[in-house]
Amino acid sequence: MQKASIGIFGASGYTGIEAARLLCGHSRASVRFLTSDRWAGERVERRLGLGGAVGQLTFVSPDEGAKLIAQARSVDAVLLATPAEVSAKLAPELLRCGVKVVDLSGAFRLRQASAYPVHYGFAHPAPELLSEAVYGLPELNREAVRKARLVANPGCYPTAATLSLAPLLEAGLIEPDSIVVNAASGVSGAGRKASEDFSFMEIDGDFRAYKVFSHQHEPEIRQTLEGFAQAGTQVPLTFTTHLLPVKRGILSTSFARLKPGVGDSQVAAAFADAYRNEPCVELAARAEEVALKRVVHTPRCQLGFACKDGRLLVLAAIDNLLKGAASQAVQNLNLMMGWDETEGLARGESAQ
Amino acid sequence: MQKASIGIFGASGYTGIEAARLLCGHSRASVRFLTSDRWAGERVERRLGLGGAVGQLTFVSPDEGAKLIAQARSVDAVLLATPAEVSAKLAPELLRCGVKVVDLSGAFRLRQASAYPVHYGFAHPAPELLSEAVYGLPELNREAVRKARLVANPGCYPTAATLSLAPLLEAGLIEPDSIVVNAASGVSGAGRKASEDFSFMEIDGDFRAYKVFSHQHEPEIRQTLEGFAQAGTQVPLTFTTHLLPVKRGILSTSFARLKPGVGDSQVAAAFADAYRNEPCVELAARAEEVALKRVVHTPRCQLGFACKDGRLLVLAAIDNLLKGAASQAVQNLNLMMGWDETEGLARGESAQ
Amino acid sequence: MQKASIGIFGASGYTGIEAARLLCGHSRASVRFLTSDRWAGERVERRLGLGGAVGQLTFVSPDEGAKLIAQARSVDAVLLATPAEVSAKLAPELLRCGVKVVDLSGAFRLRQASAYPVHYGFAHPAPELLSEAVYGLPELNREAVRKARLVANPGCYPTAATLSLAPLLEAGLIEPDSIVVNAASGVSGAGRKASEDFSFMEIDGDFRAYKVFSHQHEPEIRQTLEGFAQAGTQVPLTFTTHLLPVKRGILSTSFARLKPGVGDSQVAAAFADAYRNEPCVELAARAEEVALKRVVHTPRCQLGFACKDGRLLVLAAIDNLLKGAASQAVQNLNLMMGWDETEGLARGESAQ
Amino acid sequence: MQKASIGIFGASGYTGIEAARLLCGHSRASVRFLTSDRWAGERVERRLGLGGAVGQLTFVSPDEGAKLIAQARSVDAVLLATPAEVSAKLAPELLRCGVKVVDLSGAFRLRQASAYPVHYGFAHPAPELLSEAVYGLPELNREAVRKARLVANPGCYPTAATLSLAPLLEAGLIEPDSIVVNAASGVSGAGRKASEDFSFMEIDGDFRAYKVFSHQHEPEIRQTLEGFAQAGTQVPLTFTTHLLPVKRGILSTSFARLKPGVGDSQVAAAFADAYRNEPCVELAARAEEVALKRVVHTPRCQLGFACKDGRLLVLAAIDNLLKGAASQAVQNLNLMMGWDETEGLARGESAQ
Repeated sequence: MQKASIGIFGASGYTGIEAARLLCGHSRASVRFLTSDRWAGERVERRLGLGGAVGQLTFVSPDEGAKLIAQARSVDAVLLATPAEVSAKLAPELLRCGVKVVDLSGAFRLRQASAYPVHYGFAHPAPELLSEAVYGLPELNREAVRKARLVANPGCYPTAATLSLAPLLEAGLIEPDSIVVNAASGVSGAGRKASEDFSFMEIDGDFRAYKVFSHQHEPEIRQTLEGFAQAGTQVPLTFTTHLLPVKRGILSTSFARLKPGVGDSQVAAAFADAYRNEPCVELAARAEEVALKRVVHTPRCQLGFACKDGRLLVLAAIDNLLKGAASQAVQNLNLMMGWDETEGLARGESAQ
Repeated sequence: MQKASIGIFGASGYTGIEAARLLCGHSRASVRFLTSDRWAGERVERRLGLGGAVGQLTFVSPDEGAKLIAQARSVDAVLLATPAEVSAKLAPELLRCGVKVVDLSGAFRLRQASAYPVHYGFAHPAPELLSEAVYGLPELNREAVRKARLVANPGCYPTAATLSLAPLLEAGLIEPDSIVVNAASGVSGAGRKASEDFSFMEIDGDFRAYKVFSHQHEPEIRQTLEGFAQAGTQVPLTFTTHLLPVKRGILSTSFARLKPGVGDSQVAAAFADAYRNEPCVELAARAEEVALKRVVHTPRCQLGFACKDGRLLVLAAIDNLLKGAASQAVQNLNLMMGWDETEGLARGESAQ
Repeated sequence: MQKASIGIFGASGYTGIEAARLLCGHSRASVRFLTSDRWAGERVERRLGLGGAVGQLTFVSPDEGAKLIAQARSVDAVLLATPAEVSAKLAPELLRCGVKVVDLSGAFRLRQASAYPVHYGFAHPAPELLSEAVYGLPELNREAVRKARLVANPGCYPTAATLSLAPLLEAGLIEPDSIVVNAASGVSGAGRKASEDFSFMEIDGDFRAYKVFSHQHEPEIRQTLEGFAQAGTQVPLTFTTHLLPVKRGILSTSFARLKPGVGDSQVAAAFADAYRNEPCVELAARAEEVALKRVVHTPRCQLGFACKDGRLLVLAAIDNLLKGAASQAVQNLNLMMGWDETEGLARGESAQ
Repeated sequence: MQKASIGIFGASGYTGIEAARLLCGHSRASVRFLTSDRWAGERVERRLGLGGAVGQLTFVSPDEGAKLIAQARSVDAVLLATPAEVSAKLAPELLRCGVKVVDLSGAFRLRQASAYPVHYGFAHPAPELLSEAVYGLPELNREAVRKARLVANPGCYPTAATLSLAPLLEAGLIEPDSIVVNAASGVSGAGRKASEDFSFMEIDGDFRAYKVFSHQHEPEIRQTLEGFAQAGTQVPLTFTTHLLPVKRGILSTSFARLKPGVGDSQVAAAFADAYRNEPCVELAARAEEVALKRVVHTPRCQLGFACKDGRLLVLAAIDNLLKGAASQAVQNLNLMMGWDETEGLARGESAQ
């Protein structure tokens, strides 16, 4: 069976590394190149401990990666694990070459170009692509992903929060203006950092909120949830992120008021309808069962809920580097390429 | 200067140990006995590494402790770091002997006797004391504590949540029915546990919610907050607790809707009025500064907030074993005995 | 291709779980049953999150597992992840049924039956098998493993220490009576524990030695090393184990005096000769590169060394649950069954 | 009672902060100034959370600190918590002003000026002081410290290793050429670091050796031990350091061969003779009792040992920032100033 050729930009960040690892064990995809500023010229095997053909590759600088594509149209698809501003420039070039793109950054997640200076700190260089890009949450958007040539892979927090709330908004079970999401992430969510703030001495034993009322994932969650609410409904959520002293994993605790008369059974039914057959969503019997340790190193989102006196809590857990980034990107790639959706999602050996 | 004599029941639990440590360095208090089931007969020095006169004491069994009091009226005050059901039985006996009592359990925190079977699993043996017991949050209740002979030392979560919200409810700045409190605690909050659930293998790297919609601290917080809201107002908060992979510390993230027209300046003024001169409350310049590492091993609560579009977030951090238990108990003891309120609060050396 | 049938005894312990996970992704092996006292009657999928045919199995009690074999001779091989005393009884029965056995306990590692009461606390019920059992360290003993029907899978510490020292003893480069091994293990090495000693509160932030001069792995290492030293040479090593506040991984630091005239180049050559083509041993360029994070979740041992003034230090790192237990067991199974030695060693998704 | 005036140079490093905290609660010492590059101009209270007079001070730049002394001779003694090269320049100036100096760096620990370029990377600017400086290990050197005007505060590893071995060498119980010391330290030993190597992502869950055969504390330990061995004896120890995923604490595991005929009782007697009345050394009943958690946040060294077949293991634990640095510096200061040796050693509240 002929394998498709894949390139990975940004393969020395934590999410890029996970993507490389997953594709290394993928039966249909063959990684052709990996770019990295810091490791350009080094063997993949030495840095990532990966065997097989991928291990024998040498990291190339991002410039070489783009050049390869422009000249040889050598790959069928590319994963961009680059900063948003870099992705925003690379994606249009890649699409022009006929290459399919899954972008793991926020560069194509928001539909309004005007939101980029505010939330990402740059003017978007390719606003015309914002309406074309498909938001890659397969559980809620599978058919659109299949046809996409540009997929915006969801943010880590938005994956957890949106899977928690979208089916309930769609079914009209919760008050759209009542949502309060508290979420906590492991340190890998911040990427590689050579800063004192992310040193072991500062993180171990600590817990704190950050970017209060100003996290760039808030407009992303809101935009998606509004797409599932009744037309024209606003969903002005309160979204607060916290930093956990763990390496990986996100737990989100979402509160909403139930509409009058709604109780456990309707919520359970809405979740069952949405996720019963989903390979990457696991419905927990109880909210207290949802835990980082059940999902870390897996491509799954675990969901549980509880209701009381007209109030609802939904707990969701994911591995921020997998379902919140790399495994979801591979899930999207599988759909775009017409492959089995779960191919390659169980990752091979890893030293992280 | 004559020192007062103090007894500690339950001195081998984490909070009892902290109380012993604090009193060991207290200039006005002299620990006369410490009870412990597990360490009865052993020297305090060997178990707690404490020097001085306290170190030379021998742990006694709880029965001996009660006997000592009954017979000799040998102490002026007692700290109860015992389970609620034990405290509920001990406190009346101690009061009959003329001994002042600070109870660190929940046995005297709720005013309704009928709440005990529901939230604590036992019928209260001394319901007549529930109206007499003073809720020992000095920042909000100082004068009553001074006159009390029985103080119910607040729970750890309630200390953080109540300090976060009471001044705002009292000033009428927030909607009483809008409150959503998310809080996370270190593992010491669960007490000593020889269970697989609290083993290093299960806790390290994990994060999860527990007792969803059923934590016994919810009615405690609600009762206190309703005391600060306008008469007759209900404060039906949503309160969700989470377990952190750290030893000590609680961070609470409290959400509320602001009343129309209320903004940063009124909130800041309410907190400043309430806590400007409080030795054990530190107002942070920004919500993001509030962090476990700033308060762990200290007797302080750190508070910060942010407002946006009519919504408010208050962050609070405490050491669950100190401001959430032992140092607050000593603060209360100081007030009851007419001593300087902060005497002995800076703890001495500790190996935890 | 017809798959061979495999049974796993003790599949709810940490090493048994890892073995199940590895075999779940193995192309030649089909897990037929898994025994567990604690989970008998429960679905494997629910407990281990494993998909495929293995996930659909139900844990059986150990008695049923043995019965199945006795009656139906239903499996080709069995992995025993049971306590040594249980393995010592099960293995003879299984062998009588014509089943191949890889035992992960210490039950068949020592050649002297008289050592069992001393080091394992029981009289060995099948001493006749001690001389037949093959010590399953493939890098040093591959051909014997291929022909074995009973393999004693090495202990975790002995794997690290023996790989560090055996080639040097065999080449006559170090003084046999000079060896001092210090090693440190993650908490999973102690197995599932519902004890206060292994609670998060006691382990996090701590480090200590245990079983000083009395660890049961000391005679195992010594026996193997003496097999590689010149005939009749004693290798009376000093072996000290420590407990790390991490979940998995062993690092061993082995000291020895070099024989006169021996230096870096001979040591490097001995290691290269021994391990150059080994798929599960990685030779590090420098001793300081050897680290738990490079091997945890992988089936590899990483080795590095340094010499100075006639003294040698060898650093070795393994995942105690993989190369120190489950992946080494699968490596041995592959050899015994005539399969590719590395088949199935890269583990699939895992939530530990 | 008139208090003595003390200055602290380098008060924003981890050891400088601990020193400030200890002196803040000291009954005889009054901190007059604290220098810090990073916090110059900021209030001590805001950075360190310290109350009282110290909290009201403002950090000054190191230049101002030196100027103050030169002009006003304003302090009686100074603690230098500065890098070795800085200390080497500051100490002579300070001594010329008649100020007593406790230097926490390695600048005055080695007697040979020629060792500095090799082990510390600079030519010593004040070699004449190397013979005057007193090595400040009070348990072994108390009388000399009392009379010193310049004390070289021992390194953290040397404190643990020297207390473990010096009494045994002095009593002639161990073979001087047989010593192998393995030690492991928490991350604070590396100081404040904004590097990826010391990030939470790299440290958590990891363990590795560093500076193999090249740690600058090796000559320091050797020099001191040779001072305790029979005149002219060399003590060529093998010393290997490891990095633990914890914030604070050092555990050292020291091996030596016993001289013929020596056993438990002589070793126990030597330790009892040396440390029976030492306030900062605790002799454990068993080697396995020695643990970081017993000493972290205390000024004590805990020591235990075991013997078998002519071989000895000594376990020692200290808090690297206290007995390995700041509390030992205060212990030395107390001796130099003629105060009670343990004054101020129990540290007050701390958020680390």
